[in-house]
Amino acid sequence: MEDYKVVNVGPLSAWGDLGDSRKGKLFIDSDLGSEFIGTSVNSTPPGGQSPFWHTHNVVEEIYIFLSGGGEIALDDDVLPVEAGTIIRVPKGVWRALHCPESASEPLTWLCLRAGGDALQTIGKDGELDSERPFPWNV
Amino acid sequence: MEDYKVVNVGPLSAWGDLGDSRKGKLFIDSDLGSEFIGTSVNSTPPGGQSPFWHTHNVVEEIYIFLSGGGEIALDDDVLPVEAGTIIRVPKGVWRALHCPESASEPLTWLCLRAGGDALQTIGKDGELDSERPFPWNV
Repeated sequence: MEDYKVVNVGPLSAWGDLGDSRKGKLFIDSDLGSEFIGTSVNSTPPGGQSPFWHTHNVVEEIYIFLSGGGEIALDDDVLPVEAGTIIRVPKGVWRALHCPESASEPLTWLCLRAGGDALQTIGKDGELDSERPFPWNV
Repeated sequence: MEDYKVVNVGPLSAWGDLGDSRKGKLFIDSDLGSEFIGTSVNSTPPGGQSPFWHTHNVVEEIYIFLSGGGEIALDDDVLPVEAGTIIRVPKGVWRALHCPESASEPLTWLCLRAGGDALQTIGKDGELDSERPFPWNV
């Protein structure tokens, strides 16, 4: 039986202090023992930007913006992003983002990535138990 | 060439209004056109809980807690969760969560799911372009 794993990265306001080589970027894949889903936790300060464009040949990425604002470049498009903007970026699209110098707060965001079997191929693999009592109601 | 897709769910404070049949739970897989990664956006109000336990036979889930506090049950364990708690739940583990009646704010969280090819099997599929100028610097 595989076990779950927990990582604590603190509230959004603390994400700027995460990471070693790149402050404000922390990959937690190995700490979580992730098998399928890669996760990075990010805080881009005013004036900050991606160190380079990048793309993927296999994996899909989901960008989830949680606070602050900025712009993301997707190939030749540049889109504004703010709290609640969620973007699926498929393989083959080049991407980079920034938080403008004029911003009053960092842009915090998550990036999730995975590839392989499409969810549609996997189909409905969930099971429910409507009878089992919750421990907090016992 | 596949295209990216954007969905806007608003700031964390607005997530309680998302969803139709289950207020505070919104699956955005189809709106995002997701191929590999399923995404739900969630806000569990004080006194709220999962309508049932569930588990998966194939997919891995990553739970990312963003604000508020509560508890998650993972098989026989019950763990506190708060802003910044991130948990990988592998297939086969039964799960349910709640936000206690006494909480002063909703528990907001994301759930990502995927399965199929392990990230390790996919290996390094990324490419970088350190030369391409950023559109906001041009």
